[in-house]
Amino acid sequence: MIKKEIKVYRDLMGANDEWAAKTRDLLREKDIVMLNFIGSPGSGKTALLEKAAVLLKGRLRFAVLEGDLETTHDAERLQSAGITAYQLLTGGACHLSAKLVHHGLRDLPLEALDMVIVENVGNLVCPAEFDIGEHGKMAILSVAEGEDKPVKYPALFREAGAVAVTKTDLLPHLQFNMKQCLDYIRQVNDNIPVFQVSAVNGTGMEEWIKWLVGMKK
Amino acid sequence: MIKKEIKVYRDLMGANDEWAAKTRDLLREKDIVMLNFIGSPGSGKTALLEKAAVLLKGRLRFAVLEGDLETTHDAERLQSAGITAYQLLTGGACHLSAKLVHHGLRDLPLEALDMVIVENVGNLVCPAEFDIGEHGKMAILSVAEGEDKPVKYPALFREAGAVAVTKTDLLPHLQFNMKQCLDYIRQVNDNIPVFQVSAVNGTGMEEWIKWLVGMKK
Repeated sequence: MIKKEIKVYRDLMGANDEWAAKTRDLLREKDIVMLNFIGSPGSGKTALLEKAAVLLKGRLRFAVLEGDLETTHDAERLQSAGITAYQLLTGGACHLSAKLVHHGLRDLPLEALDMVIVENVGNLVCPAEFDIGEHGKMAILSVAEGEDKPVKYPALFREAGAVAVTKTDLLPHLQFNMKQCLDYIRQVNDNIPVFQVSAVNGTGMEEWIKWLVGMKK
Repeated sequence: MIKKEIKVYRDLMGANDEWAAKTRDLLREKDIVMLNFIGSPGSGKTALLEKAAVLLKGRLRFAVLEGDLETTHDAERLQSAGITAYQLLTGGACHLSAKLVHHGLRDLPLEALDMVIVENVGNLVCPAEFDIGEHGKMAILSVAEGEDKPVKYPALFREAGAVAVTKTDLLPHLQFNMKQCLDYIRQVNDNIPVFQVSAVNGTGMEEWIKWLVGMKK
């Protein structure tokens, strides 16, 4: 009998969700919490993690999977800060796929970790649409971006489990209405914690760090 | 004879390019220059256009097609500044399609215009990949985003005809190495004009405005 070759075209999103499910299984098995950090380019995601490396010492063991299109700048920055960080390069794609994240995760020293933080590609749109198997998404918005981004890019803020409003040290030099920004966040998602932080002068960091530690319990 | 129904699946990018070609025909017919402004959310694209409205008065007649996922905030801001501005909503998509731009363009008062500026969706990745029939792309990068974005998101900077480094009024309050930033831009594209501008205090704006006016000649 001649066997015909069958070509199977699988829905891209379906394949993504299968990898996300594998990641969830692995995280459950290893008892690890995974968060997905999403924000614009330059919103301060990496700076926040550099600071977290210092503040979480002795309280939570974490590693970072660094998503970028090109370069290993961010993983290098985090390694310099003493964090185990692997670089995931999308080679041009605007978000991390669940498959790429799973392969990075599998290679991390999972037995020695409580948490894995994925820093997604800098982009307020695409990464919000792709499940990577995470326990929650953290939206990162810098005050330099303006207060209306939550309503202009609502998908992320709707999906997020928490928001960090970053670079608050710049507030004296900007026309940024924090109350209006918080109102916009509430319009999209009326029930998430919002942390106002500065990685430069440390304002608000301890409150955010406590929330991170609490995610593990 | 029974005519069979033929289903035609057309490559999405192919369809986009057909609309871009229509736009190029229309721009040629009306003798209008169209530029495509691309940058991260909050990089200062709209603020730059508000300022341009004042500085271009009597020198160049322009209108704006404002791209966003949701809200009409930016078109409203520009109309308040006296600019004819239509809002193009992608409804979630991460970039403007050539078709949407073409429909907006067709409805503008083209006989009374020298230039149309398209402000694309805030995103350093996706909009760079889609031809909308423009004469050139302008990359917008705010100093608040950090100097390494040109090498981390090289596609846009490779495609761009010019770069505006915005929000230079914030430089005294940031760790931003302008020389390093310019080096990174040169690494990706060694032959494009770079304008260092502040829409807040006006620094560098006149040089950029002259370049805009020159695009029309």
